[in-house]
Amino acid sequence: MAGGPSTVPLAAAVSEVGGLGFLATGYRTADAVTEDLAALTIATSRPFGLNVFVPSGAPADPQAVQAYAQRLAAAGLPAGEARFDDDAFEEKVALLARARPAVVSFAFGLPPAAAVAELQEAGIAVWITVTTPAEAAAAAEAGADALVAQGAEAGGHRGGFDGGEPGDLGLLALLQLCETAAEGVPLVATGGIMTGRAIAAVLAAGAAAAALGTAFMRAPEAGTSAAQRTALASDRPTAITRAFTGRPARGIVNAFMRDHDGAAPVAYPEVHHLTSPARAAARERGDAEGFNLWAGQAHGLATAEPAGALVERLAADARAALSEATAAAARGGA
Amino acid sequence: MAGGPSTVPLAAAVSEVGGLGFLATGYRTADAVTEDLAALTIATSRPFGLNVFVPSGAPADPQAVQAYAQRLAAAGLPAGEARFDDDAFEEKVALLARARPAVVSFAFGLPPAAAVAELQEAGIAVWITVTTPAEAAAAAEAGADALVAQGAEAGGHRGGFDGGEPGDLGLLALLQLCETAAEGVPLVATGGIMTGRAIAAVLAAGAAAAALGTAFMRAPEAGTSAAQRTALASDRPTAITRAFTGRPARGIVNAFMRDHDGAAPVAYPEVHHLTSPARAAARERGDAEGFNLWAGQAHGLATAEPAGALVERLAADARAALSEATAAAARGGA
Repeated sequence: MAGGPSTVPLAAAVSEVGGLGFLATGYRTADAVTEDLAALTIATSRPFGLNVFVPSGAPADPQAVQAYAQRLAAAGLPAGEARFDDDAFEEKVALLARARPAVVSFAFGLPPAAAVAELQEAGIAVWITVTTPAEAAAAAEAGADALVAQGAEAGGHRGGFDGGEPGDLGLLALLQLCETAAEGVPLVATGGIMTGRAIAAVLAAGAAAAALGTAFMRAPEAGTSAAQRTALASDRPTAITRAFTGRPARGIVNAFMRDHDGAAPVAYPEVHHLTSPARAAARERGDAEGFNLWAGQAHGLATAEPAGALVERLAADARAALSEATAAAARGGA
Repeated sequence: MAGGPSTVPLAAAVSEVGGLGFLATGYRTADAVTEDLAALTIATSRPFGLNVFVPSGAPADPQAVQAYAQRLAAAGLPAGEARFDDDAFEEKVALLARARPAVVSFAFGLPPAAAVAELQEAGIAVWITVTTPAEAAAAAEAGADALVAQGAEAGGHRGGFDGGEPGDLGLLALLQLCETAAEGVPLVATGGIMTGRAIAAVLAAGAAAAALGTAFMRAPEAGTSAAQRTALASDRPTAITRAFTGRPARGIVNAFMRDHDGAAPVAYPEVHHLTSPARAAARERGDAEGFNLWAGQAHGLATAEPAGALVERLAADARAALSEATAAAARGGA
């Protein structure tokens, strides 16, 4: 939920009712993350986590980026500098090791062994996002305390290791395969989970917990833009695209995606920076056809409830769903 | 499981232990289905179901089919007659109405109202396969007794209404959306379900039952070819393609799929008939690169257990998973 929706009040509201609130560090400076952490520590004394993007290994092909930049310029879009950076990875890891949140989760790859060690030595649980059994095995081997198993239903970026060929497994298939590939490592299930019943489902599938993103994007505490809130409340279809950032991500299909998806290179974060001004301008003028409307496949079920009330309702619904299914199975309903 | 894997002994073995065995009628003549039904009625006195393909509304563009035929011919492949037919739809519905199995399920579209009425008047439950909430709403409106909610994880053909743009929802997303779109109509969950835990998951998600296909394809009772059994036992990736039949279907990625996927038209059953001899020849010579290796995303978890033992193990595992998750949630684990 980097890039807007993730806020300190949202994470705090989730943690305050016994959930594990998460704060995104992506696209933010180390100083901004330090400020966020200070604010979150004031807002809640409960455990919370932060998510960090593992940097790409190397810059993308400059010619491919340049060709895409020319295409967007020809469409009349303002452009940002298509630079390669590591999103201040080492500074963020160092400051998190000092701040000692309960959890640091990683997306976009296997974090360096030194980062894992630094965080774990500080008593922080390290979670790694995986989208395939092979990634799960590698993350388990790297000593992850838990794996965030991200199904293809998920909104926003595919969090796995490969920005070119992202994992396409549905969440239930992934959970079953990870159980074998990374035996004994707890799984945090994510992707398309919008209801208490779906939380119950992933727990029954063996996950230790469920992680929800899109479900919170219409909450008043979220920083989601008005145009995106409207789109989330519709039943518009989603698709996975590199058009906005150069890395595959799921969003509601709109004109920008349709116009540029086929031409977008594998080039993260270059394309993210390149399209940033055009996306900000569209967001600002409320034009839902011109920026990334990240959303999971079941986004139409997102509600505008306050985050704390949502967590409490989902937890109660999940417990009820499990009891009901257990009773039905005992009667022979399975 | 039409086209080989579905057999009378497989359906009978499932029904005999209290499952609901299914027999495919696709690609079979009405006479062959009549013989199958007679054999199945002898093999088990328990309830079973049969699956029927709803015919496409109209033949595909002949030029597109011809272009694809030329491509395959250029690759040296033997060709069948790319004919349009309705797979003996009306004869099959009529004979099923007389035979009165417990369930008739439909794939590839909304069956005509007359067919639904004829079967229901004979006391047969009518199930309709859906892959989107819109299809679910239409099937509910058509009076379906249950909806087979097929997630994108599923092996074989996408069973929804649209052969051009198939539904891409993961199973858990689909179940949540169908609960709203077709309130009150029981859901049979299918797609990527290979373990008792996954069965538990879909029951917790609110499904009335789970339907498994790939999980049975290595069973000794299945008619699965030797080359496909070997491929199923691997961790080879799957993808959705029209290359083999002109309708999107998920199979293990192989040379035929890679070579022809991009060129395959929306043309079912024409392309099915066109490629039939090439596929049969490859299957015969054990060449897994030359025919359709239908498989769900988690196919690597399929076992070679006898079907009855598999059903009993999965049911016990599902009950255990539900009890475990319910107990964990009561302890606050959710």
